[in-house]
Amino acid sequence: MQHEVYLTLIRHGQSQWNLENRFTGWVDVELTQEGILEAERAASRLKDLNITYHLCHASVLKRSIHTLWIVLKGLNVSWLPTQKAWELNERHYGALQGLNKKETEDKYGADQVKIWRRSYDTSPPLLDRSKVKDLNPKEAEKYNQLGLESMPLGESLKTCQGRVVPYFKNIMKPQLQSGKNLLVVAHGNSLRSLIMEIENLSGEKIMEVEIETAVPIIYKLSIDTKSGALKLISKNILK
Amino acid sequence: MQHEVYLTLIRHGQSQWNLENRFTGWVDVELTQEGILEAERAASRLKDLNITYHLCHASVLKRSIHTLWIVLKGLNVSWLPTQKAWELNERHYGALQGLNKKETEDKYGADQVKIWRRSYDTSPPLLDRSKVKDLNPKEAEKYNQLGLESMPLGESLKTCQGRVVPYFKNIMKPQLQSGKNLLVVAHGNSLRSLIMEIENLSGEKIMEVEIETAVPIIYKLSIDTKSGALKLISKNILK
Repeated sequence: MQHEVYLTLIRHGQSQWNLENRFTGWVDVELTQEGILEAERAASRLKDLNITYHLCHASVLKRSIHTLWIVLKGLNVSWLPTQKAWELNERHYGALQGLNKKETEDKYGADQVKIWRRSYDTSPPLLDRSKVKDLNPKEAEKYNQLGLESMPLGESLKTCQGRVVPYFKNIMKPQLQSGKNLLVVAHGNSLRSLIMEIENLSGEKIMEVEIETAVPIIYKLSIDTKSGALKLISKNILK
Repeated sequence: MQHEVYLTLIRHGQSQWNLENRFTGWVDVELTQEGILEAERAASRLKDLNITYHLCHASVLKRSIHTLWIVLKGLNVSWLPTQKAWELNERHYGALQGLNKKETEDKYGADQVKIWRRSYDTSPPLLDRSKVKDLNPKEAEKYNQLGLESMPLGESLKTCQGRVVPYFKNIMKPQLQSGKNLLVVAHGNSLRSLIMEIENLSGEKIMEVEIETAVPIIYKLSIDTKSGALKLISKNILK
């Protein structure tokens, strides 16, 4: 026997640093007014599909959480259980975090920046470990579960995938297998990691995939109730 | 050995039906603009106290959840894990839900209404069971865990307490005992139930306690690490 479930992925709406064209990574910046409007549009489009969601996932970064809140409010399901996980955070951009992309190109050259942005397994220049120690206590508390000594100092997409995929397999997949429709709001590269897994794409192929802010991607999956195997039925990009 | 923890209780900001002076109960009405402002004020007052919260609780009603979201955003801790539980819902006001309090007095008499509102163990006139069956599927989904056949048709404060206190004892108390500071946003009567338990008040006494919308009540508790016993140290109403 088979049953069908929906897995909806949404990249957060425009953030302050998207607007300023800066490398963001784990820096916890807020949505812009445009980002809020984008999230509201996403909600009203999703509403028409009338999917009954059961569980939600977001990262621990507020641009993802606030986008989810706006979508939940728009769908009138603010009560939905939500897991917020550092594993769904954006790829950590190391020492590039905070830098304007144009300035970085001027400094390191456009070719080097392209490699950092578009190579599957090249890490950005790493953050200094002392910067992690200097996190204010409230920010440190957020990564309590991970442990400060384990905090990444910079990630390639491959490294990012190394935490996103286990989260998918251990947390989200069993929920899908038990028939739950999931709503996931995360980031460009944590979503790339998920999409790579779901669509079975190569590291090269995934780098070509552009994910727009607050445009829901809806996967319909079929689950074999005996084996638990997941099969992709359709992908719907809700522009 | 003893350690200290904080338990903060907040009643949701003004809702549409607070404004219209109607019995609300489990009807899922939204905050008013004033309610949103109240919640923002609560956040900025709490911010000054600089308590590090670890976990949050809300009901499954949006006036509670949205108040919590505003407070979390104001404290810059949107990432905090949050449990949303029907057990923290407002007292179910049965067949009175939706009625204007003035109209109800005209219909049933002020004395009867006072009993319904101020007696510890008198239930309001009950809802018809068929009304529960008629819930739209999205609304029914919200009470999935409880089960539609178990949904209350009207509660006295005593009945309400019968679900709030077990939630406190089974879910919140162990969290406090393990040193977590809790932030709870709920409703007039679910908070009365909690306060009755924490302050060890009688059914008569608790009915005199008025809880203002979006005014944080901060309990400092001491926990005996050996026995787990909880002792009230101080109560701070953050007006």
